[in-house]
Amino acid sequence: MKFQNLMASTGEWLRGEGPHHQIVVSSRVRLARNVRNRAFPGWEHAAKSVGSAIVMNRKQTLSVMINEEDHLRMQSIRSGLQLRQAFKLVDKVDSALEAKLDFAYDAKLGYLTACPTNVGTGMRASAMLHLPGLVLSELINQVIQAVNKIGLAVRGLYGEGTEAMGNLFQISNQTTLGEKEDEIIARLNKVIETIIEKEQDARQVLIQKRPNTLWDQIGRAYGLLTYAHAMTSKEALNLLSVMKLGIDLGAFPEEKRLGIDQLFIETQPAHLQKSTQQKLNAEERDHFRAQIIRERLKSLPKPDISKVAREPEVTGNSEPEKNE
Amino acid sequence: MKFQNLMASTGEWLRGEGPHHQIVVSSRVRLARNVRNRAFPGWEHAAKSVGSAIVMNRKQTLSVMINEEDHLRMQSIRSGLQLRQAFKLVDKVDSALEAKLDFAYDAKLGYLTACPTNVGTGMRASAMLHLPGLVLSELINQVIQAVNKIGLAVRGLYGEGTEAMGNLFQISNQTTLGEKEDEIIARLNKVIETIIEKEQDARQVLIQKRPNTLWDQIGRAYGLLTYAHAMTSKEALNLLSVMKLGIDLGAFPEEKRLGIDQLFIETQPAHLQKSTQQKLNAEERDHFRAQIIRERLKSLPKPDISKVAREPEVTGNSEPEKNE
Repeated sequence: MKFQNLMASTGEWLRGEGPHHQIVVSSRVRLARNVRNRAFPGWEHAAKSVGSAIVMNRKQTLSVMINEEDHLRMQSIRSGLQLRQAFKLVDKVDSALEAKLDFAYDAKLGYLTACPTNVGTGMRASAMLHLPGLVLSELINQVIQAVNKIGLAVRGLYGEGTEAMGNLFQISNQTTLGEKEDEIIARLNKVIETIIEKEQDARQVLIQKRPNTLWDQIGRAYGLLTYAHAMTSKEALNLLSVMKLGIDLGAFPEEKRLGIDQLFIETQPAHLQKSTQQKLNAEERDHFRAQIIRERLKSLPKPDISKVAREPEVTGNSEPEKNE
Repeated sequence: MKFQNLMASTGEWLRGEGPHHQIVVSSRVRLARNVRNRAFPGWEHAAKSVGSAIVMNRKQTLSVMINEEDHLRMQSIRSGLQLRQAFKLVDKVDSALEAKLDFAYDAKLGYLTACPTNVGTGMRASAMLHLPGLVLSELINQVIQAVNKIGLAVRGLYGEGTEAMGNLFQISNQTTLGEKEDEIIARLNKVIETIIEKEQDARQVLIQKRPNTLWDQIGRAYGLLTYAHAMTSKEALNLLSVMKLGIDLGAFPEEKRLGIDQLFIETQPAHLQKSTQQKLNAEERDHFRAQIIRERLKSLPKPDISKVAREPEVTGNSEPEKNE
């Protein structure tokens, strides 16, 4: 598949059809492998640029990177909570390749990798979770701390060291030594299922106790996305996150979900640059981003809050009293 | 007129019909007077509460406060730039009262007042200006400094010591000694005319050089006011200010001006409290305020930016290229 076609098509992982897709955006498993007795790619800079490549299947569920940090990085990415399925796919490719290649493997340590944090299974499994309920309820830090305590990592949208944007959090295994692949996956899966429950609880509490905060957030997101003429990618992500929550809660029609999910990707700087085919400065990007969003949301009806819970009404009287 | 009817009716000063009303919201002149050989009201606390009152004409262009800080405070407030007219009205009342009352007057100092800052003419003349163009262009501080240098005061919406909200600034005379009433008015008038020109220039420059910033501000204000479910009075003032600018620039129909101007007043805490006839806490007020605004703006069409200036288009292409 050509790169242009790849950009224009929507991968399975983005189609929002996997299990628990409202909260789990995607699941990802990658394996790092190296060929025995060959220097890691980082050691031979000239060779790296000559021999590096990426191979991907048409459904975009599987990719193999050649000569990036390791000789081989096999990755599977799936929609929703599908860690086991992602592992199965990548494991199959690994076995097929291992039949042909002699991988660097130590009986005690396991698979050898360029970076010591990957030695052992060479596996990193992660899921991208959308947790607006926990963020709005200010319970997110508590959840992050609990997850960290049991040896899993929580990161913002762009991986390590980045602030969480769009209420998106990546949960992944920290360790690759001393635990088998399926044990890691099972443990991660269980933790994610617990977080899903906590997110659902938080949303229910918000609907019951602070409906007005919810409708305010959803209304503001809709109003800004529909009428702004300049928007940074950070603001876009945060507002789109609230729209996604709005769809989950029934304030917008379910068939608009894919459109919102696609905007998450398409409003990012590199994607914007690609789709205009012009070199844009930051101000032009912000303008173009707002233009794309306004265009796409034209067909989106106004938020319908009656579908979920009635907000408490304050009755007003602007008529002057008669008998005073 | 009963207080309830007063609250329900719209004073002449708010009707936005005076000269330069797009930029000058209102003009106000007040005179402080005291009866000779009687202690100032502040000196006899018991007497004050017994003998204090306010008298107002039906058009709300003239009011007389009795036994507030001074024995008499006569005030005229008019729509737009009408300082001379306001002074004329209040001067007429002053002359009529002076024919009946013996005012405390010193041949050298002039009229004597409770606060030394009012001694002399006893006059304070001011105008409330709406200056979003100068604020958006970041020229406002320059203007404030220049105005201060020539001995006039600039204050935010609620008078002394308050931050400017809703891009509203009050300009007034500082001194009441050594200058005649009509000289003060003439000087103030001239300065205000200069500020009006600067504000108009700033708006033209914004339209020419930064149209996108303008449409972004106007679009965001419209989106938030139309869809938010909770709003503080400060946010409401700031957004309504942008809507007012939008009307000035033709993005909204002229006939919607009065409705927007009224919201400036009606969304203030005391007015909200009055119109619900319920004791509301801050959260309930914010909710009710948003509800009133949404209701009132229902009939307002979307911002029409084509009326003023065309924004530069960035052309996008989301189709994949064919020949690469």
